[in-house]
Amino acid sequence: MNPIPAIAPTGPQDRAVFARRESAVRGYCRRFDTVFTSARGSLMRDESGREYIDFLAGCAALNYGHNEPAMKEALLRHIGADGLAMGLDLHSAAKRDFLERFETLILQPRGLPHRVQFTGPTGTNAVEAALKLARKVTGRHNVIAFTNGYHGVTMGALATTGNRYNRMGLPLSGVTRVPFDGYHGEGLDTSALLAQLLEDPSGGVDAPAAILLETVQGEGGLNAASAAWVQRIALLARQHGALLIIDDVQAGCGRTGPFFSFDGMGVVPDLVVMSKSLSGFGLPMALVLVHPDHDRWQPAEHNGTFRGNTHAFVTAAAALDTYWREPGFTDEIARRAALVHAHLERIAREVPGARLKGRGMMQGLDVLGGDLAARVCTLAFERGLIIETSGAHDQVLKVLAPLNTPLPLLEQGLALLHGAVADAVAGTLRRAA
Amino acid sequence: MNPIPAIAPTGPQDRAVFARRESAVRGYCRRFDTVFTSARGSLMRDESGREYIDFLAGCAALNYGHNEPAMKEALLRHIGADGLAMGLDLHSAAKRDFLERFETLILQPRGLPHRVQFTGPTGTNAVEAALKLARKVTGRHNVIAFTNGYHGVTMGALATTGNRYNRMGLPLSGVTRVPFDGYHGEGLDTSALLAQLLEDPSGGVDAPAAILLETVQGEGGLNAASAAWVQRIALLARQHGALLIIDDVQAGCGRTGPFFSFDGMGVVPDLVVMSKSLSGFGLPMALVLVHPDHDRWQPAEHNGTFRGNTHAFVTAAAALDTYWREPGFTDEIARRAALVHAHLERIAREVPGARLKGRGMMQGLDVLGGDLAARVCTLAFERGLIIETSGAHDQVLKVLAPLNTPLPLLEQGLALLHGAVADAVAGTLRRAA
Amino acid sequence: MNPIPAIAPTGPQDRAVFARRESAVRGYCRRFDTVFTSARGSLMRDESGREYIDFLAGCAALNYGHNEPAMKEALLRHIGADGLAMGLDLHSAAKRDFLERFETLILQPRGLPHRVQFTGPTGTNAVEAALKLARKVTGRHNVIAFTNGYHGVTMGALATTGNRYNRMGLPLSGVTRVPFDGYHGEGLDTSALLAQLLEDPSGGVDAPAAILLETVQGEGGLNAASAAWVQRIALLARQHGALLIIDDVQAGCGRTGPFFSFDGMGVVPDLVVMSKSLSGFGLPMALVLVHPDHDRWQPAEHNGTFRGNTHAFVTAAAALDTYWREPGFTDEIARRAALVHAHLERIAREVPGARLKGRGMMQGLDVLGGDLAARVCTLAFERGLIIETSGAHDQVLKVLAPLNTPLPLLEQGLALLHGAVADAVAGTLRRAA
Amino acid sequence: MNPIPAIAPTGPQDRAVFARRESAVRGYCRRFDTVFTSARGSLMRDESGREYIDFLAGCAALNYGHNEPAMKEALLRHIGADGLAMGLDLHSAAKRDFLERFETLILQPRGLPHRVQFTGPTGTNAVEAALKLARKVTGRHNVIAFTNGYHGVTMGALATTGNRYNRMGLPLSGVTRVPFDGYHGEGLDTSALLAQLLEDPSGGVDAPAAILLETVQGEGGLNAASAAWVQRIALLARQHGALLIIDDVQAGCGRTGPFFSFDGMGVVPDLVVMSKSLSGFGLPMALVLVHPDHDRWQPAEHNGTFRGNTHAFVTAAAALDTYWREPGFTDEIARRAALVHAHLERIAREVPGARLKGRGMMQGLDVLGGDLAARVCTLAFERGLIIETSGAHDQVLKVLAPLNTPLPLLEQGLALLHGAVADAVAGTLRRAA
Repeated sequence: MNPIPAIAPTGPQDRAVFARRESAVRGYCRRFDTVFTSARGSLMRDESGREYIDFLAGCAALNYGHNEPAMKEALLRHIGADGLAMGLDLHSAAKRDFLERFETLILQPRGLPHRVQFTGPTGTNAVEAALKLARKVTGRHNVIAFTNGYHGVTMGALATTGNRYNRMGLPLSGVTRVPFDGYHGEGLDTSALLAQLLEDPSGGVDAPAAILLETVQGEGGLNAASAAWVQRIALLARQHGALLIIDDVQAGCGRTGPFFSFDGMGVVPDLVVMSKSLSGFGLPMALVLVHPDHDRWQPAEHNGTFRGNTHAFVTAAAALDTYWREPGFTDEIARRAALVHAHLERIAREVPGARLKGRGMMQGLDVLGGDLAARVCTLAFERGLIIETSGAHDQVLKVLAPLNTPLPLLEQGLALLHGAVADAVAGTLRRAA
Repeated sequence: MNPIPAIAPTGPQDRAVFARRESAVRGYCRRFDTVFTSARGSLMRDESGREYIDFLAGCAALNYGHNEPAMKEALLRHIGADGLAMGLDLHSAAKRDFLERFETLILQPRGLPHRVQFTGPTGTNAVEAALKLARKVTGRHNVIAFTNGYHGVTMGALATTGNRYNRMGLPLSGVTRVPFDGYHGEGLDTSALLAQLLEDPSGGVDAPAAILLETVQGEGGLNAASAAWVQRIALLARQHGALLIIDDVQAGCGRTGPFFSFDGMGVVPDLVVMSKSLSGFGLPMALVLVHPDHDRWQPAEHNGTFRGNTHAFVTAAAALDTYWREPGFTDEIARRAALVHAHLERIAREVPGARLKGRGMMQGLDVLGGDLAARVCTLAFERGLIIETSGAHDQVLKVLAPLNTPLPLLEQGLALLHGAVADAVAGTLRRAA
Repeated sequence: MNPIPAIAPTGPQDRAVFARRESAVRGYCRRFDTVFTSARGSLMRDESGREYIDFLAGCAALNYGHNEPAMKEALLRHIGADGLAMGLDLHSAAKRDFLERFETLILQPRGLPHRVQFTGPTGTNAVEAALKLARKVTGRHNVIAFTNGYHGVTMGALATTGNRYNRMGLPLSGVTRVPFDGYHGEGLDTSALLAQLLEDPSGGVDAPAAILLETVQGEGGLNAASAAWVQRIALLARQHGALLIIDDVQAGCGRTGPFFSFDGMGVVPDLVVMSKSLSGFGLPMALVLVHPDHDRWQPAEHNGTFRGNTHAFVTAAAALDTYWREPGFTDEIARRAALVHAHLERIAREVPGARLKGRGMMQGLDVLGGDLAARVCTLAFERGLIIETSGAHDQVLKVLAPLNTPLPLLEQGLALLHGAVADAVAGTLRRAA
Repeated sequence: MNPIPAIAPTGPQDRAVFARRESAVRGYCRRFDTVFTSARGSLMRDESGREYIDFLAGCAALNYGHNEPAMKEALLRHIGADGLAMGLDLHSAAKRDFLERFETLILQPRGLPHRVQFTGPTGTNAVEAALKLARKVTGRHNVIAFTNGYHGVTMGALATTGNRYNRMGLPLSGVTRVPFDGYHGEGLDTSALLAQLLEDPSGGVDAPAAILLETVQGEGGLNAASAAWVQRIALLARQHGALLIIDDVQAGCGRTGPFFSFDGMGVVPDLVVMSKSLSGFGLPMALVLVHPDHDRWQPAEHNGTFRGNTHAFVTAAAALDTYWREPGFTDEIARRAALVHAHLERIAREVPGARLKGRGMMQGLDVLGGDLAARVCTLAFERGLIIETSGAHDQVLKVLAPLNTPLPLLEQGLALLHGAVADAVAGTLRRAA
């Protein structure tokens, strides 16, 4: 259970080829500068044999942990039998298995009539598809997106993404930016401001094709919208003839507890964008759930080679079978979320002014400064914990552990985090002295 | 060797869930309306047990055929050992293996100093990255793209794609459209027209950030540019301070014979976009080769969850090991290409005016009308051959067999195609009579 | 002094050619459906000989009234002597006269170092020039514009204009919309929201080239920003490297009292856009005042045929000579503004909930509904008063009398307005009963 | 008749205020660096009393010369009688007079059913209106514009303008650029290329809202399209559901001979854009002729303060009365055009390779280099002739004399031009020796 190996690295780690031949765009590897080889559950192992508790989880693409046994077995069986690996958007048995399970276990219990559009297997591709469809259906161009939203970096999605660093000063268009829930403090109900803007014929906001939102902004700093706010936004969308698109790429697949982050909020989105943990195994897969009223696509109007990543269908079906057939999984997530919450409350006391953010297994701690957060991550990594930041100033420590992390391991990781925060704060004080 | 099974289907094929729950955007499955289960080499099998010769090859994403044994073994070994499945853009042993092989087997022999940017695992994502980088490096916005070019359907890439059906009337921007090589007949050297436009300060063409081209336009109808034309375009790019981006998504990885479609043309692109057959196994993977002079990315400026699809790195490394370590593979491709060419010349005689298109294993037959081409595909499918069309009017039958298709099977497929063309023409004549 | 003639119209008014040959885009003539022939001071005369008190004043383009004697004389003298009528942007004596007076009477007393850019003679053209210059100077694309702002209808300016009716659903780009001062009630300091958006690296608001504002939004409903708010916006512009552009097209030239609407606010805009009453006589003229630090234009980079409307220079110089050489004019305006204010307060009592809007001679009454306001205008016109509405719902009666309207005539007009409001309200009540 | 005065300047010319207070954007005044005071017919006078023959004519805004007597008289009478100076888009007697004459003298004789939209009084504003209307009517966004086209510098028009200097690297959108008639030499029929692009569903050219062209490109270098080419373009517009917009701002009002530059070509444009010489007197005025089928404007959807420049209506009506009531004016223009042609042919012999450009009174000489052309203009100005250049490299000497220039004065101007060309060439040879 102790993830930190006593043994020394087994040999020199050659990372020269990365410096020599990988583009400067590489990112995560700069902070976590080792070479990973294998992983299982919530532990990653590098080539020196050292293990790390994974509180990053493929940035929420590994909600069920690494190499989850049921999925792994299903995948090995599929490959071993020469199961189709890629099938464009042909019918395949693997796709049918996934669709049937998704219908039975996810859509039907919620009374959702939606159809599934398999897009290119990235979240940004699915966002692009959703935006194009909303524009086609409504005949409008404008899209409402929110401060600190993150929806990908291809040009259409990037226009909706708030991050200036990623926006690169490019001439992006077609988006009206509106403050997210709570953005300007308690005094401002941002849904009321949006209502005013939409109702005002000279407010400068064109009639929208869509309102696009995350219920919990993952990259934006774990900002969680209230259910009441999401409901008001959904109502505005309906009143103004706009499609409601919920981007559940990071918050979906159980990350906040239930399968969809908006479960229980009383809203039925017109379109839902999913990716990341959809395949369960970390394999590229993405889709848009399309309300049948809006399924106005022509065949192959939005296309792409890898819409049929059959391996991902196999593991995705196994994930649904294993985790979502019984209601207990949501309880398991809730228990872990409570544990995380309790620990974070204690950790927060180390940093005057620190605030808890997020909900479910998508919680974190705003430590008020990106430098401090970065030091925490570095110290944590030295001690065997992989954790990252998010937020406008990278000031939010983000606990994205796999949803099925064993409780002792979760506690161990949180303890490592606590120590790292305490030491980072102490180091800061020393430096300041 | 006979791909057409004598046995009857083993049971009812349930396709209802596709109609019920898959979006109307689905495409290929409409023409090839069966449920595929497994595949090996150049044969696909549906759930009735029927086999089909595959002349589509995942739209050139399966250049080495389905479930190629060496890659399959490597992948099974990796998964079996809990090898990392997804690793964001962390360093991984699998990525290192791929990079080292790509450097040794592909880049160094060609004297290419390029670095590898792993993008989201779709061609369109890599095109978006290349366009953003070119705009950043040059500080310019305009991109030159060509008639009938196809580069993907996310908004940035879609602006460069010629297909009006996919463009959906969206307000796309930032692209100047120029006729491709041979577009307006022999009388017009389109590179001379482009030269004039670029040199003309009031020609209405802003100084370009990039010139983006395919050497053989796959979706556009297998239009092959001459080496001389590509060289002139490359020279224009240099003269005008634009980056030359070659989109080798469909034409690369040996499809035209050598690894890159521009090998032997005497040009060094600033950026090369690759995807499709890069992983060898049909797994989602894409990259941009970036000349070091232009590697001006900030860390994670272009990002995405699935940049580290480690399974794809494993099979991609195996593909390089297996097929590109020795020079013989290009000869094998050339032999098959000659065979395809010879057959297509014979088949062309069935259709007055039909023209051969493309080069290498990216050849086809322009039968002058989309209706005829569609009938050919339907007849072929009934007889056990999967083949698709491309071109502005879907009028080009496109032979995209795996590059290692056994010669007898290739001949058998071409014979099926010949029969389908002959019968489709006869049917047309009957209908017209 | 009685503007309502006792005599009957002198003959049939032929308006058929307007219906037959003028585009449906014509607007004001629909409400004020008569044919005007002449005008003097604050009175307009139609071809039946009837006179109207003019509370529209060319939509603030006739601040000194119609055919103001001093300007008329100067213009007749100029034309009579074959003075240059149009001179592109050549040096002309008329332009020099204007520039010297503008320097001496307007710029120097305020310590403004600005240069004058003569643009095409429309406000929208000057706004376009200012936006292009700000983008050139900063190398940025985004412009901050405000709810209910109105800056013209050519594509660059239209992107900044809030009116959805004028925006026509066109794909306008390059603008971030922010609530104007007071837009969302007293509880929201919109400058604080803008500050937050500008400081937030993932707020989705790209670094701006400019912040563009009217201190009093004329078309937007006579919304007057406080001096403190304008100062905060000016500070934000400086802090974030954006140019502050004040659009004084409607509020300038004494409309709010002093020459510039921002006089006395303690801000020095980087660029000021002027038009409408600039020529004094209603002749087309527009300019941008450019702080020398930003005068980075290349010769003729922004151009246009009628930048040298010499007739306008002649009357503009006479206007400065006549009205702005002595400080008394501002006092005269203030006296009239007080009179308007007092009357509007009384009139407001006729309409429960009505609110006074604007400041200076740019005041009006928000009667809460566009239908009521339209009826008031119609009744007023029948009685010899020309007055128009503005605001998002055309619900604000806008008193835009010439600044030098004789006090008795001003009183007479306000009395007509009072009667029209009272009768319109009574009519509404009758209709509702 | 000798325009060059013997007398010395009457005093110092103070131009300091221009340097001190006029923006660096000023252009023409740099080449013609004197201060103009008055002008009559084809002669301009500066404040030293020196006279110049005007071969620039307000860049074709003064087709009838300066201070044409009939218009001058009408304008003095109108102003003297307190005629309305500006009237927004109210009905005015002056507007009616203009409309009736325009109907009777221009539209009816040609059988044109078009209506008149009065726009903001600049050509670029009218172009913007035409583009917006075409987009509204068709529901499409793309506009076809041509190499070397010039349509103004506000953002919508600028996107159609070819000049890179004016385009300023701004992110302009919504336009497909196509080679103009003759652009790529005799071998390429550019209308055939456009036909191919429009018919090709993957050519990358979206279905166009409009095709926008000048029959003679004034700023682009006096490139005259053939009637056959214009007809083919008109046919393409009809076939593809696009509006044909002819920008007759510079070539209209008799500049090429008949009133419209397309008279006699057998085409009926959907929209015609006019400005420059429309008022006859150099006063700002612009309009769009709208075929009634397309007059889908809502009231004031496109608006602007100075749409009712009544002074311009007065002179415009007088211009129609004076010059277009009898057919003889076109003959007068033709006679002068022949004279210009004959002289230019002689002058061309001074410059090896020089080519005549344009047609009617819109002719010029391509002297192959901008430096030489600039020297010619400078020498000409020293000798009392005002003439400018156009073309991609400012290499075309442009003779834009008033259409009614007395023949002896026209000859005198052409002789001055001849001498300037000869001396400039000699100077070049000397410098090269």
